[in-house]
Amino acid sequence: MAGRLYGVGLGPGDPELLTVKAVRLIGACPVIAYFAKAGRRGNARAIADRYIPAHAEELPLYYPVTTELPFDSPEYLTALSDFYEAAAAALTRHLDAGRDVALLAEGDPLFYGSFMHLFIRLKSQFDCEIVPGVTGMAGCAAAAGAPLTWGDDVLSVLPGTLPLEALVEKLKLSEAAVVMKLGRNFAKVRRAFAEAGLLERAIYVERGTMADERVLPLRQVGEVKAPYFSLILLPGQGRRP
Amino acid sequence: MAGRLYGVGLGPGDPELLTVKAVRLIGACPVIAYFAKAGRRGNARAIADRYIPAHAEELPLYYPVTTELPFDSPEYLTALSDFYEAAAAALTRHLDAGRDVALLAEGDPLFYGSFMHLFIRLKSQFDCEIVPGVTGMAGCAAAAGAPLTWGDDVLSVLPGTLPLEALVEKLKLSEAAVVMKLGRNFAKVRRAFAEAGLLERAIYVERGTMADERVLPLRQVGEVKAPYFSLILLPGQGRRP
Repeated sequence: MAGRLYGVGLGPGDPELLTVKAVRLIGACPVIAYFAKAGRRGNARAIADRYIPAHAEELPLYYPVTTELPFDSPEYLTALSDFYEAAAAALTRHLDAGRDVALLAEGDPLFYGSFMHLFIRLKSQFDCEIVPGVTGMAGCAAAAGAPLTWGDDVLSVLPGTLPLEALVEKLKLSEAAVVMKLGRNFAKVRRAFAEAGLLERAIYVERGTMADERVLPLRQVGEVKAPYFSLILLPGQGRRP
Repeated sequence: MAGRLYGVGLGPGDPELLTVKAVRLIGACPVIAYFAKAGRRGNARAIADRYIPAHAEELPLYYPVTTELPFDSPEYLTALSDFYEAAAAALTRHLDAGRDVALLAEGDPLFYGSFMHLFIRLKSQFDCEIVPGVTGMAGCAAAAGAPLTWGDDVLSVLPGTLPLEALVEKLKLSEAAVVMKLGRNFAKVRRAFAEAGLLERAIYVERGTMADERVLPLRQVGEVKAPYFSLILLPGQGRRP
């Protein structure tokens, strides 16, 4: 009988923010798979560390090095596609042999992220189960003590990869917003908040829920590049009886 | 020394989807508070049941009966405001006496919901800590096996309380969407998906992650009213290398 694939959400970074179900499955699956940069241990592996049994077989899935390729180039998409195919094949070998696999996913498995690319390749062949996780945005709102949405607020979740004009327009139409995928887009995103007249209300959160978290008003952040675990919150101002 | 207020996210409904931290705090706080309809046990109390020690003091906060009042009437807002003030006073008595209070919140404490109304009333007087939780939308996406956002998808979270025209317009501008607060708005929301040309892509999820969950294509759902634990997902179609 084939094994089952679990997509296990790890939450925003604090190892205590895994769910009870995630902890149980990480302790029970014979194979623990996770994405990582080549030569690194990987964020997912670090968050789940205390829950991975010593006897588990670990299957790190190393992203290809693509720093020299533009994100929208055909070469980049081909390199990623080849990587996902090879990763799916590696998981298939374990599942075919009857071994359950827990594939770790930072935050929630179905909210951006790499897990979904393997899930759509494997879900028609194998039994799959998703264990939802606390999103980075919920973790960062908690770290900031900033209620995100009230009453009838509309929330927009925007990738920082959007062009400046699109960001400005969408921010203006939002009662509440979260901007993800900052990285090298940080300066552009900060400018979009300023052009939308929203710089004063925005909060920058870095490594929210982790030991070295930083929470700052966006207007005070001068960096041009933001780390992987960071986002910007625009808390809503809706109905508050 | 005053007690500390914990806002504890309970996740989408499956008791195994509480976080390790939520379970620890529910087991450790001498007072467990939760919202409920008058005469009911309440959804939050039911989800957390197995984790509440027998010796804990329970503080149910019963919503006022306001069914006869329109949601946008001044009378409704006054009734709610009076209720939140009284609930904050009840929590204050415990906190002043040095007792930590865990205030339970379905889903995530800072993503809609009642917790925030007490949090803003108490946070300047007492030490408060938020324990983020898995949102209903992450739980429902997991139940449906439907990846919500890919690549550069923009996600809109829309309350079903919006007028039809606003829903249609915002759905048309979204790559991915979640519509919450269905209830009596269900028929209107369904019509908005149809008018936006998105009925075929939308998924209805009821009681996602709970024992009696239902997942259906929205086009197959004929009800005019949806239960409390329900929402509609419009999964994104973004970049998939």
